[in-house]
Amino acid sequence: MTAPSLHSDAPADRPSDRPVVRLLPKANARAIRHGFPWVYANELVTDRRTRGLTPGTIAELVDENRTPMGVVTVNPDSKIIARMLDSDPAAQINREWLVKHLARAQILRAQLFDEPYYRLIHAEADGLPGVIIDRFGDTCVIQPNAAWAEMMIADLTAAVAEVTGCTNILKNAGGRTRSLEGLNDLNEVLLGTQPDAAVAVPMNGATYMADLTTGQKTGLFYDQRPNHAFTKRLSKGARVLDVFSHVGGFGLAALAGGAEHVLAVDGSAPALELARAGTDAMGVAAKFDTRQGDAFEVLADLEGQVDPFEVVVCDPPAFAPSRKALDPGLRAYERVARLAAPLVAENGILVLCSCSHAADLTQFRSACVRGIGRAGRHASLIHTGFAGPDHPLLPALAESGYLKALFFRL
Amino acid sequence: MTAPSLHSDAPADRPSDRPVVRLLPKANARAIRHGFPWVYANELVTDRRTRGLTPGTIAELVDENRTPMGVVTVNPDSKIIARMLDSDPAAQINREWLVKHLARAQILRAQLFDEPYYRLIHAEADGLPGVIIDRFGDTCVIQPNAAWAEMMIADLTAAVAEVTGCTNILKNAGGRTRSLEGLNDLNEVLLGTQPDAAVAVPMNGATYMADLTTGQKTGLFYDQRPNHAFTKRLSKGARVLDVFSHVGGFGLAALAGGAEHVLAVDGSAPALELARAGTDAMGVAAKFDTRQGDAFEVLADLEGQVDPFEVVVCDPPAFAPSRKALDPGLRAYERVARLAAPLVAENGILVLCSCSHAADLTQFRSACVRGIGRAGRHASLIHTGFAGPDHPLLPALAESGYLKALFFRL
Repeated sequence: MTAPSLHSDAPADRPSDRPVVRLLPKANARAIRHGFPWVYANELVTDRRTRGLTPGTIAELVDENRTPMGVVTVNPDSKIIARMLDSDPAAQINREWLVKHLARAQILRAQLFDEPYYRLIHAEADGLPGVIIDRFGDTCVIQPNAAWAEMMIADLTAAVAEVTGCTNILKNAGGRTRSLEGLNDLNEVLLGTQPDAAVAVPMNGATYMADLTTGQKTGLFYDQRPNHAFTKRLSKGARVLDVFSHVGGFGLAALAGGAEHVLAVDGSAPALELARAGTDAMGVAAKFDTRQGDAFEVLADLEGQVDPFEVVVCDPPAFAPSRKALDPGLRAYERVARLAAPLVAENGILVLCSCSHAADLTQFRSACVRGIGRAGRHASLIHTGFAGPDHPLLPALAESGYLKALFFRL
Repeated sequence: MTAPSLHSDAPADRPSDRPVVRLLPKANARAIRHGFPWVYANELVTDRRTRGLTPGTIAELVDENRTPMGVVTVNPDSKIIARMLDSDPAAQINREWLVKHLARAQILRAQLFDEPYYRLIHAEADGLPGVIIDRFGDTCVIQPNAAWAEMMIADLTAAVAEVTGCTNILKNAGGRTRSLEGLNDLNEVLLGTQPDAAVAVPMNGATYMADLTTGQKTGLFYDQRPNHAFTKRLSKGARVLDVFSHVGGFGLAALAGGAEHVLAVDGSAPALELARAGTDAMGVAAKFDTRQGDAFEVLADLEGQVDPFEVVVCDPPAFAPSRKALDPGLRAYERVARLAAPLVAENGILVLCSCSHAADLTQFRSACVRGIGRAGRHASLIHTGFAGPDHPLLPALAESGYLKALFFRL
């Protein structure tokens, strides 16, 4: 596999030419030395020179005593003003450096998965701050959510092509944090061509259809894979209700596990169409129905109208994406649990998920238990799942493990 | 399958004849109504009559206003003076009641596992407070760790035989909490015969040898099954070090996953012999070595003496079994991490486990990260695992989920 001849559009990084940025005495230099990857704006000496750096500039970070701490990328416009790239101040941040990190990330995924469908790079924990790369067979989708990655996009594209052998590389500029970094929201084809139809993605024995151009995130949520797999184990012969189904993550896994029937509920007609296309590809469309609408309304509407389901899954969008949204978010999770619990058969399973950073596991679990209790049901908790291993975490940021899936038996 | 004709040795439970025990105003009646399963001694009116009840007595619990709350079992000698058996005050606690709970528990296990090797009853969350039942094919091992179960042991034995069809039922009286309940530590054969050799247990494609008579707990730890499975995924071609190996839980799963070699370290020669017997049964004994000794000493000794391992697992006994032991316990976990990290190859996996109730996930993770850092290594966290789904939790006790397994990539 020859790397495509993409020219680097970033100036070559030379350790000796780099600007230097310095920590304030109040900064937690020790945490950074132990792996905390970020410097906040109020921890850095922000003189006129630093404030004038182009977003994405590669710089050397020194502590208050001017001892070198490593190579960072600086964005004076961002609250996270510097992100650690390499703790070795002599490291050169170039295509070879990117290749090294991509190769290291791919070794792990190749160990974990039989087929090349996974999150290849999960930002900081894979050594590329702010960068998300999802792989779908011979197509990769890059989300460069930090300015440095946007500046080095040609090198990054070439490095991805070299390491993965992928022939199509797309840029998804829909990341919520790009605007905080001062980046635009224009998608691009970086290499090859854009797939002209939804891509078939094999996962847990199901087939998902991913729209890599207009879909949410990068068209498919790989993070829930182990939670889909656990649901599959409980779905043999079951009638399953999949609420906030998106393209059918839980429902199609349940069908792969032998579910008798799945009803998928989502607000998005295109998402439900992709779910339907997945069941066509799997040959189980006859066991699949959809209902488009507001999930809360559909849940309330179903109560008393249908026989209870052996498995009910609710995987809503982030109700508590920020600290400020925590209290209303937790009330929304409680409400989901209260509306869903009456639809679960005796000895049935209720799967409740949260992808909210702000709500930690204990808070989310309490909200769910309150909702189940208000529905007059009792539950045991048989499993707690998180995002899959292609979504590693830096231990220093592990509290922010955003995805939780709770499996209750009612 | 006919139930064996075991005579009940407990007096028949009749709702109208039951003694009544009453909550103090300060007790949290609301929590109990919402599923909290215990009444502490300082929450109950303990007049002479209550103090005189035989441990294990079935009684009616009423709140401070004498409103019935359900059926409890009372043990005036225990700090947990009452345990909720049924929130329906009219429930009769007898063989049929036990059968109902056992059947409900078995439905879930049959959904989850292809073969009858699992924890059948995990105490409160399976509706039988203080009772642990592990199933090994046609043999069940009951741990009646609360006085009521000891009183009803004949009914419980008959119910287990009826629901599972097992022909051998053993009593393991080694539970640490039995003495708190005033119970003795005498093992018994309750039905059938005691296996005269170690029992072969299939799990994750490996074969474990379980000694159901003299081994730790009930001879095998089913709780780590999903964490063994995750380790297996990462073990193909790997050299694996399994420290505190017991009968080879992680090591044999790694061999089933294609590990090149496993070195198992444990203080117990009998446990290592059983691990060895497992590798014989699997036909992989040539890839397996053992080293008996103090794990801390062996870890320190191995450093610099051997090539680093692609996978290192440390699954020590509970270093922090109680609040009082928390600080020294966390230091011990940190020490394990510090000694193990240098033995892990670049891009290798370090699995660190805790079965300590007192150390929560955040505390345990921090201790591990400190230890890894002190060894001069950096890590990402690729997976957090808990006990398997045959070890359900009551949500009200979910904080006490004792088992944690952290998968770090170094």
